[in-house]
Amino acid sequence: MSEAYVHGYDARANERLQDQAAALVDLLHADTHYPEGSRVLEVGCGVGAQTITLARRSPAARFTSIDVSEASLDEARQLIARANLTNVEFQQGDIFALPFGAASFDHVFVCFVLEHLARPVEALAILHRLIRPGGTITVIEGDHGSTYFHPDDEAAHAAIQCQVSLQRSAGGNALIGREVFPLLVAAGFADVRVSPRMVYVDASRPGLVDGFTRKTFTAMIEGVRDAALAAGIIDAPRFDAGVRALHRTTEADGVFCYTFFKGVGTASAQP
Amino acid sequence: MSEAYVHGYDARANERLQDQAAALVDLLHADTHYPEGSRVLEVGCGVGAQTITLARRSPAARFTSIDVSEASLDEARQLIARANLTNVEFQQGDIFALPFGAASFDHVFVCFVLEHLARPVEALAILHRLIRPGGTITVIEGDHGSTYFHPDDEAAHAAIQCQVSLQRSAGGNALIGREVFPLLVAAGFADVRVSPRMVYVDASRPGLVDGFTRKTFTAMIEGVRDAALAAGIIDAPRFDAGVRALHRTTEADGVFCYTFFKGVGTASAQP
Repeated sequence: MSEAYVHGYDARANERLQDQAAALVDLLHADTHYPEGSRVLEVGCGVGAQTITLARRSPAARFTSIDVSEASLDEARQLIARANLTNVEFQQGDIFALPFGAASFDHVFVCFVLEHLARPVEALAILHRLIRPGGTITVIEGDHGSTYFHPDDEAAHAAIQCQVSLQRSAGGNALIGREVFPLLVAAGFADVRVSPRMVYVDASRPGLVDGFTRKTFTAMIEGVRDAALAAGIIDAPRFDAGVRALHRTTEADGVFCYTFFKGVGTASAQP
Repeated sequence: MSEAYVHGYDARANERLQDQAAALVDLLHADTHYPEGSRVLEVGCGVGAQTITLARRSPAARFTSIDVSEASLDEARQLIARANLTNVEFQQGDIFALPFGAASFDHVFVCFVLEHLARPVEALAILHRLIRPGGTITVIEGDHGSTYFHPDDEAAHAAIQCQVSLQRSAGGNALIGREVFPLLVAAGFADVRVSPRMVYVDASRPGLVDGFTRKTFTAMIEGVRDAALAAGIIDAPRFDAGVRALHRTTEADGVFCYTFFKGVGTASAQP
């Protein structure tokens, strides 16, 4: 009886965790649907983490998903095949040297890509030319400057700042989320609408505590430890104190906040 | 024709500004409704800015709105009378010395009050005793640490930090929004649910650019200039540069973000 109860509890807890992982996918993607027959270019698909959601949600659209890495594309191909999805074609390609003609696509989707580019407006302008007039671009980016939490902690901010600095040194911008609106406007898109997608985590949302605060955000920060120490931008005790403080926000009285930004713009007639 | 067009345009622009002011009220209050006959205590009503929204949205509930300042209460009384609302009774009172017995109210509403208190949990515990078991408390607070913008600017953050420091010196906490969940839990409320209410402003939302970024947030920061200089926590050129940078975010390529937190908890049987 007691064991059954425990199992029952675990099953419910598991379901809740799954629900909250799904909640995050919904938060970012629920309002992205492409109509039957539309040609969609996904730029920087990586291992297909977003591709699978896109392809499932718009089963009658035809996706072309590109990435610079053949190794990532292999993983993405397997993921899509295992999901029995047949509406995705993968292709190796660099955003600055794409083998597509003007107006080849109805829509373009770019998620967590611009943050890595030194010239995001130039990249968006290139993508603009690939979209037929009236088609759309959808851009999703995070912003590490949107991170705040309780208890607040200086070392935690310093550890996050390491990730921001390292990404900047590599030519990227970990604070790009807030710039999605001006970037899309600068690249010539019309009717640009940006909406923030805030992830709010407290103990009443255990799936997000584990799935987002601990295993997504804090794990990402922990992942730059070696690079940050090697770059000499922080010392080990301070970095480790920062990571401990991030874990501290996952306790019963902790709170963690992060915001993604999603923008949609319409391609205008090409000049 | 051209003048008519200009008038038409102005009328539409005005409507849009009004809509966006209404959008902010909606963002905070749209999900607060009290049923017919319920007794609601509003704590710290000030000049009635929230009272009028509460009383309109729940015309069959009876509000008791208290504030420490008789001058504010006079203004609030006039505002409510001008709006022909008859379901609000005003009363002078201090949250730490209220003239109400246990379980006197079905619901309590507290907006932008806890940020000024040195002992917020104690205040919430006092309010808890005034609510019948099963009744609710609603708490809304801002969080200045949730502020970020484009273009980013160090002096702007320093100017905002002045407001945070001055409020802390006065015993308050301008970063309290993120703590609404743990505060309500610490005060013994059950089923606490907190939801963030993020205000995202870019040039596609001109009413918020003017009504929120410029006239609400930046005006508030400008308002602490004398106190900040007198306290010696910043020099005038840096403060003024910070304010200019906040205004800079209202230009066509600017973005401004701020988040309010709304929490609801249920009063449990009193110990």
